[in-house]
Amino acid sequence: MSDISHIGIAVEDLERAVGAFSDMLGYPPSLTEEVAEQKVKVAMFAAKDDPDSGHIELLAAADDTSPIKKFIEKRGPGLHHLAILVDDIEKKLSEMKAKGFRLIDETPKIGAGGRKIAFVHPASTGGVLLELQQR
Amino acid sequence: MSDISHIGIAVEDLERAVGAFSDMLGYPPSLTEEVAEQKVKVAMFAAKDDPDSGHIELLAAADDTSPIKKFIEKRGPGLHHLAILVDDIEKKLSEMKAKGFRLIDETPKIGAGGRKIAFVHPASTGGVLLELQQR
Repeated sequence: MSDISHIGIAVEDLERAVGAFSDMLGYPPSLTEEVAEQKVKVAMFAAKDDPDSGHIELLAAADDTSPIKKFIEKRGPGLHHLAILVDDIEKKLSEMKAKGFRLIDETPKIGAGGRKIAFVHPASTGGVLLELQQR
Repeated sequence: MSDISHIGIAVEDLERAVGAFSDMLGYPPSLTEEVAEQKVKVAMFAAKDDPDSGHIELLAAADDTSPIKKFIEKRGPGLHHLAILVDDIEKKLSEMKAKGFRLIDETPKIGAGGRKIAFVHPASTGGVLLELQQR
């Protein structure tokens, strides 16, 4: 299993992007949902033979105050964040804090699928918005 | 095996980024090389138990004419491209061309590790520089 949980991609039009990525990958999304708390509509493409990792997650703004809308206004659509799987998210957060990484979430919150997740600020990762996800 | 071959990240200082990603992931890069043809220095982090997919590839400019230098000047450091594995790259390129994707490489070229690769322009993928890689 890969250490990459998924790669998040900010898109302007979810339906159109789902069409393009279905054409590219050769299969449809395995899941489409709206995550109200984060103000995003999500379409997840799971790899055929790897249900736990290596997914492509398309993210569209659910409303005008969505962080995805702000991201697209600033940077344009495209690669948005990288999510990696970790064995013990609390331990990893405390290790990373001690090493000087700038944590957006000091303690995990609950993400899609009920998993523990936490974000790390791009300023301390060479420009990458990093999501840690409990394996 | 994941369909994601790797995620490419443009960095300003390869040594510093290798330090940060080694700290994050908990292991050192499996490969560091300079790809002269593409004017990049590369450090590849392979997932512990998945040698064929789900890698993180750090890319630094090898000189001032490197595409990575231009990317960082325009967008800042961060997520650069997404590489997916395909079973038959020639067939996939011809299918994608027929569907209206804008190909950067109409025919495959040889990338790192001697694999056939081809790039697809972000304008037709919702802003994502996409690399197809022969599985």
